[in-house]
Amino acid sequence: MAKVLYVICDGLGDLPLKGKTPLSAARKPNIDALAKGGQCGLLHTIAYGVIPGSDTAHLALFGYDPCEYYRGRGTFEALGAGIALKHGDVAFRCNFATVDASHRIIDRRAGRLKDFKPLEAAVNEIKLQDCTLKFVSTVEHRGVLVLSAHSASPSFPSGKGPLSPRRESGQNGAPFSQQEKAGGPGLSSNVSNTDPHEAGVPIQRCVPLDKSPEAEKTALLVNEFSRRALSLLRRHPFNLKLERQKARPANALLLRGAASYVHVESIEKKYGLKAACIAGGALYKGVARYVGMAVPHVPGATGRADTDLDAKAKAALSMLKSRDLVIVHVKATDSFGHDGDFAGKTRMIERVDAMVGALRKGAPDAYILLTGDHSTPVALKVHSFEPVPVLVNGPLVRVDTVSRFDELSCAAGSLGHLTGLELFRVVVGLAGKGKLYGN
Amino acid sequence: MAKVLYVICDGLGDLPLKGKTPLSAARKPNIDALAKGGQCGLLHTIAYGVIPGSDTAHLALFGYDPCEYYRGRGTFEALGAGIALKHGDVAFRCNFATVDASHRIIDRRAGRLKDFKPLEAAVNEIKLQDCTLKFVSTVEHRGVLVLSAHSASPSFPSGKGPLSPRRESGQNGAPFSQQEKAGGPGLSSNVSNTDPHEAGVPIQRCVPLDKSPEAEKTALLVNEFSRRALSLLRRHPFNLKLERQKARPANALLLRGAASYVHVESIEKKYGLKAACIAGGALYKGVARYVGMAVPHVPGATGRADTDLDAKAKAALSMLKSRDLVIVHVKATDSFGHDGDFAGKTRMIERVDAMVGALRKGAPDAYILLTGDHSTPVALKVHSFEPVPVLVNGPLVRVDTVSRFDELSCAAGSLGHLTGLELFRVVVGLAGKGKLYGN
Repeated sequence: MAKVLYVICDGLGDLPLKGKTPLSAARKPNIDALAKGGQCGLLHTIAYGVIPGSDTAHLALFGYDPCEYYRGRGTFEALGAGIALKHGDVAFRCNFATVDASHRIIDRRAGRLKDFKPLEAAVNEIKLQDCTLKFVSTVEHRGVLVLSAHSASPSFPSGKGPLSPRRESGQNGAPFSQQEKAGGPGLSSNVSNTDPHEAGVPIQRCVPLDKSPEAEKTALLVNEFSRRALSLLRRHPFNLKLERQKARPANALLLRGAASYVHVESIEKKYGLKAACIAGGALYKGVARYVGMAVPHVPGATGRADTDLDAKAKAALSMLKSRDLVIVHVKATDSFGHDGDFAGKTRMIERVDAMVGALRKGAPDAYILLTGDHSTPVALKVHSFEPVPVLVNGPLVRVDTVSRFDELSCAAGSLGHLTGLELFRVVVGLAGKGKLYGN
Repeated sequence: MAKVLYVICDGLGDLPLKGKTPLSAARKPNIDALAKGGQCGLLHTIAYGVIPGSDTAHLALFGYDPCEYYRGRGTFEALGAGIALKHGDVAFRCNFATVDASHRIIDRRAGRLKDFKPLEAAVNEIKLQDCTLKFVSTVEHRGVLVLSAHSASPSFPSGKGPLSPRRESGQNGAPFSQQEKAGGPGLSSNVSNTDPHEAGVPIQRCVPLDKSPEAEKTALLVNEFSRRALSLLRRHPFNLKLERQKARPANALLLRGAASYVHVESIEKKYGLKAACIAGGALYKGVARYVGMAVPHVPGATGRADTDLDAKAKAALSMLKSRDLVIVHVKATDSFGHDGDFAGKTRMIERVDAMVGALRKGAPDAYILLTGDHSTPVALKVHSFEPVPVLVNGPLVRVDTVSRFDELSCAAGSLGHLTGLELFRVVVGLAGKGKLYGN
């Protein structure tokens, strides 16, 4: 059975500025050698013309159709933060914010760049009726809140997002839409945000977005949580000290992106692949955990430009000994795209090139794939619909004429244009785990 | 109206060994001339990354979505063996096998390479309650058994196989899943095999795979058939003689691959095409008959490397006079792939080249298509997910720059990447039978 190393550089694709993209401008001898000795193509992660979010893109890249499995980002952030979830839990992304006496938002990020970890324990002291809560303060002003009903009767609204790529008349979310009735009403993610996404307006009241008792119950719980958080944060010594220093206190918690956790078949059960994911960013760790990959802690893997790519390569090669598939995720290419930093993105690609060289050296017989989850062109500073170059190199591939790995060269590759789910089927096939359809 | 000749070389695609595939190594002036004067592409028969079986692949190539129409291989084998089927019949693939006194399997193929035709009549003497049976001994140890209920109330389980490409969460088999209630319970293909697929273990008891009365009834009938076959084969003079010769007797019949026959709309009704198929292998004849193609008997067409390709070309040209579409199937390219025989596969392609030359000469105004149903790389010896080259040549095509017909060259063709169903729509269009969608 062949082994597969699958490198995903977030936001890798770009649009040319003065005829160059970061990929075509970067000096990347190792990656170009893999392209020359392998086959290339262009990846439309979700479907042609669709702009992928990072969460949906990674579901697709990991072989899980987001039209079927995507239920919002909150659960991935919770799993990425190390919170264990059970079927029916509802997770929210949170911001510590600064509000005035009438709960009007002054700063959605409470001054930003501060460590609000000292507030975590106090938030976890909040008691809600018939429901357990777990709050984790993650990076800067960000956090995750998970609500877990004592009585287990979750309601799963149908899949989020209007798009059903390549399944024009299919129904979204069929596998989860059944109501599991047992005990009183559970929770639902079909509730509105309390985060208005702008300053100058008050914290929003959470309202149910459907008429289910679960959504109604969840909205009540969220509003109760908001009130209690306001009350305790206002009086917390950490905030009183900030106020004395004339700094912005973290006197409110804003919630957004409710997502229901639904247990899914693991990647090993679904595809027969033992898989691991080496990532720094919480979201990517979360999606990987969601599908049952091993996600080892790699010291120095930060999900930022300061990440330790040597450590990631070493961890990946180590995991590959006992796995069929190891994914290595690099976040900073996307961050430089969002910042509009052409030179930064180019330099980051050159650092990835060194990591790819180490991976090839450490696993000369493995298949190596390299691609991104979407394009984040520096000219746009946001995700775009343009496809991402992809290469496959390894013992048995149809080597094509492409000799450089960039947006234009790869368009002539023999892989053609393919989706994230299609690319994952290729991964399964290369690993020797493909199943014959028919006889 | 234009005529279409459609040549399918089974398992044609391959992976490079020392930079060459059988297709790129073969001397094939006729095929390369068609590529040069036509347009080329790469075919993903079922969907990108999916490994096709021969049965599902041919359904797709004939314009029938396997996700909708595939109900197992048995019915195709039965039709290919010349058995007439009626709606609701259940067909099994069979092996004559050698078992010991406790019905433990000694040889799943009863010594192989023998002609067991003399046993056929005796097996057909078996009487089962409320059910007719038809058994045909086909090639060597292989055979087909069809059970046909007297009372007609068949149960059709939903489509086999977990894959619904491009319709990931859709329901399989909707057109057939309804139960047609009339009379007592009929038969169901949703039963287990009696063939354990290995020696050293006993013949398996057939069990129903769902709770329907049809599956229960079918399992009972299969077990009764197994018992009676054991009893009569043990005492059959043909086997007694083999035992005296110290050869392995064919004293058991192993059943596998139950498939329900469901009547489908013919290719003529569905697409307006009068079609014929020239093939040697029973499976391919069976799929062609299933969709209502004419399948003439061509002496010398064996489905093996010794097949008479001249005779097939002549038969194809003769059928083309009264048909819109004639398919010519060549099996041996796949067999050489399964055997890992690079030189054999290359030679077979060179023989196909001569046949293609004869076809072009005999039908200078027809469209000619050439492709395979899947790749069977000699390096792997099994079907693989890699796409197959395809060419279309004829009076009105967009001639592209491809001048050689192989896996790499065709990747640059103007047909791009397409599926079997998409290619069949092209066939319908070239034949002038395409229907406007909309107005």
